[in-house]
Amino acid sequence: MKTVQQIKSGKNFNAVNLGTMNEVINYELPMGKDFTLKGKVFLSQALGLTGAEMSFQTLVPGQDSGFLHTHKTHEEIYVIISGEGQYQVDGEIFPVSEGSIIRVSPDGKRALKNSGTSNLTMLCIQYKANAFTEKDSPMEDGIILNEKLSW
Amino acid sequence: MKTVQQIKSGKNFNAVNLGTMNEVINYELPMGKDFTLKGKVFLSQALGLTGAEMSFQTLVPGQDSGFLHTHKTHEEIYVIISGEGQYQVDGEIFPVSEGSIIRVSPDGKRALKNSGTSNLTMLCIQYKANAFTEKDSPMEDGIILNEKLSW
Repeated sequence: MKTVQQIKSGKNFNAVNLGTMNEVINYELPMGKDFTLKGKVFLSQALGLTGAEMSFQTLVPGQDSGFLHTHKTHEEIYVIISGEGQYQVDGEIFPVSEGSIIRVSPDGKRALKNSGTSNLTMLCIQYKANAFTEKDSPMEDGIILNEKLSW
Repeated sequence: MKTVQQIKSGKNFNAVNLGTMNEVINYELPMGKDFTLKGKVFLSQALGLTGAEMSFQTLVPGQDSGFLHTHKTHEEIYVIISGEGQYQVDGEIFPVSEGSIIRVSPDGKRALKNSGTSNLTMLCIQYKANAFTEKDSPMEDGIILNEKLSW
């Protein structure tokens, strides 16, 4: 069973190594006494996330999410990293592949299926919906420093 | 110049197609009257994000972020999708490659460099730091529906 490796951490950061994208299938997520979900890994604990949860999942050909789900207060973004599949929200089904990115509101009933012939790997991130206001523009939040950048 | 393609949208979602990861280099970000940054694309507008900003960037060999930056209130996660480079926070420098993931607190002085011989592509997401409390566990926020999943 693969585990997330710590690279380095400091006062203001944590860096980990998940492994290459085709190694995501080697993770195992305990789902109770008798069941382990293969190919899924959550990262908030290893990274020390304070306002989001991030996970990676690999679905083998024919595999789907297994259930529809919604959220109470979190918006989600799905990024398809490789493979081909179908995504559905509220019964609307559409094809996805490498570079497809889907935002889903808390209320959206969602699921993903690998409908291709190779593994499908995706990244999912969730965070508080409606947390940004006009003044939270990332361009306004970032501060470019007037310090020399050296390596 | 490449642009983000809309796939489908509905009451509770937006789906877009960024293109394959090796096409990120073809995006151009206007940075003022006389300068365009090649290989960078922001997605919050196309996706209608309400609590995060997501961007993709490809750095060519030798290229770095160009400056150190911090944030006022946003935590950031960087995911290295391909390539090899160096990442720095508060002067601490460490190697990164496919599958490296870095969380940076608002105060961390950060930058990334492609120190390899091929393009380095990364995904960056920012959201409100410290937005989650104990009860915001993603396991608590998600609601698994007792409805048939069909395709």
